[in-house]
Amino acid sequence: MNETRERVVVTEVGMRDGLQSIARTMPTEFKRRWIDAAYAAGVRHMEVASFVPAKLLPQMADADEVIAHALGYGDLIVTALVPNLKGAQRALEAGVHRIVAPISVSTAHSLANVRKTPAEMIDAFAAMREAIDSASGVRTRRVELIAGLSTVFGCTLQGAVPYADIAAIARDAVHAGADVIALGDTTGEATPRQVGEIIELVREVAGDKLRSLHLHDTRGLALANTLVGLQHGIREFDASLAGLGGCPHAPGATGNVNTEDLVFMLDSMGYETGIDVTRLIESRAVLAEALPGEPLYGYLARAGLPKQFAAASQQIESSQSSALQVLQ
Amino acid sequence: MNETRERVVVTEVGMRDGLQSIARTMPTEFKRRWIDAAYAAGVRHMEVASFVPAKLLPQMADADEVIAHALGYGDLIVTALVPNLKGAQRALEAGVHRIVAPISVSTAHSLANVRKTPAEMIDAFAAMREAIDSASGVRTRRVELIAGLSTVFGCTLQGAVPYADIAAIARDAVHAGADVIALGDTTGEATPRQVGEIIELVREVAGDKLRSLHLHDTRGLALANTLVGLQHGIREFDASLAGLGGCPHAPGATGNVNTEDLVFMLDSMGYETGIDVTRLIESRAVLAEALPGEPLYGYLARAGLPKQFAAASQQIESSQSSALQVLQ
Repeated sequence: MNETRERVVVTEVGMRDGLQSIARTMPTEFKRRWIDAAYAAGVRHMEVASFVPAKLLPQMADADEVIAHALGYGDLIVTALVPNLKGAQRALEAGVHRIVAPISVSTAHSLANVRKTPAEMIDAFAAMREAIDSASGVRTRRVELIAGLSTVFGCTLQGAVPYADIAAIARDAVHAGADVIALGDTTGEATPRQVGEIIELVREVAGDKLRSLHLHDTRGLALANTLVGLQHGIREFDASLAGLGGCPHAPGATGNVNTEDLVFMLDSMGYETGIDVTRLIESRAVLAEALPGEPLYGYLARAGLPKQFAAASQQIESSQSSALQVLQ
Repeated sequence: MNETRERVVVTEVGMRDGLQSIARTMPTEFKRRWIDAAYAAGVRHMEVASFVPAKLLPQMADADEVIAHALGYGDLIVTALVPNLKGAQRALEAGVHRIVAPISVSTAHSLANVRKTPAEMIDAFAAMREAIDSASGVRTRRVELIAGLSTVFGCTLQGAVPYADIAAIARDAVHAGADVIALGDTTGEATPRQVGEIIELVREVAGDKLRSLHLHDTRGLALANTLVGLQHGIREFDASLAGLGGCPHAPGATGNVNTEDLVFMLDSMGYETGIDVTRLIESRAVLAEALPGEPLYGYLARAGLPKQFAAASQQIESSQSSALQVLQ
């Protein structure tokens, strides 16, 4: 069992995407406990807040506090979502490691979501890039700027988005200074063949800056789409514990791909996520306590790990400990 | 839009696998209506009953009547599941087109399910082959015999089943006269990489007799596993309307992959199933009426078709009707 397992990054986005899609506001103390539980399960990438006006999204009013808590873990990569320059400045002040800006490829969705056309959003994105670069002089670690391309796989407001539009906006985002291009299935309309096609399309203009998929499970295809992403070289995926999530401006959209189910699939395929799926399932208790009555989704939490899967994990662990004994 | 779409066979098995896993018995009249509704939606392959002692499975006591109704549709391929020679003789008398015999690769599951070891089941299978061949002389169409290999991807009773055992039993089934080898994830433990590996493994001994996958969605991976099956050349899949299904002798197992969600994925990938997914969703009403309170699963029934998907279907339809106009 000496094979090196290929690493896949799973970013828990439930604290941002999940919580901003439900009507209730999770008290800050529970957000802290969620971050603690996710960290304890091995999650090292979390999108924990967004910097948007508190009157629009009261769920995110405690962004500074939540980020400060997350930054207490020295090896946790902390991401915030920001829709504009002011948000980016606040995120920089808060000390996040990664900033993701939503750039919708659908004009209708972009106007509904950030009140800007995609072209105006690209300009705002370029301004964020400048703000980050100006701030970087006084920081030890460069903040990464992610272009979160939204409604890439379809838009409930506009319908299909032409491939040429997607490629043009991805190219513009790269030119405007994106470190990373993430493809978002905001409305849960992505299908396997399309995911492969659009990854190849965007890779032509974005090269290896295309790194991440943000999938929703509206039509049960999120894991099949993830599989296609893996087959096309993607190694970073957003997910929400218990499938919490959605988009308030995309009617009919439902939660992100479920973190537990995603980690189980990745584990089963031999990828290394660093996440202990059993502890992840246990961490759902924080959500159940904080949001009583809120539906918690997920197959693995109900069915449990298969017998041979648990056995295989133990085999890996015991072969690792034997290896350690030999080394010691 | 002149491309020929590759055909994929979807067999509705809810009338057998779905109904035998729930405590209640569906009245025959509703089974007839379900068959009618599935046929109207374009389903042309159905596994409608099993021939087992009525005291063990009262849900299947009306097998003869249900099969007679299904055979009323001249172009419907009618399948029955049988566990032994007596069942095969009853199925032949009833006039089915295909007989599927469960051959578990796990000894523990085989004993629980059919009270025979896998080797004893192979002997019974060979006897079924003889019975079919003797009967074939007086029939216009040769009845196909399917070896439904069960617990191929794991067994809740026994744990992992060694690949060598799977290959050996598949080879024995071919030698005993199987027309078709189907791989069954009886307990819903299959994972994508494993599905690919086992298909290749079994293909080595079964060649193009390996034709079909029977997947359960216990851990949310049934569609991802289907995708792997497609990539490895499989073009026949079992499914249950509304995800009804399971296995009474496999604790924790849940329903088959959902027919509607499967057909949607296949449609989205350009495969031709002949099934109208909208009518399929409408046909859930029969289940709701026949089994009040029974949980009906499925993503598409809740979320509906994406806007652009409907548009694309219309495009195909209108280009087909233009083509017809040109021809006429």
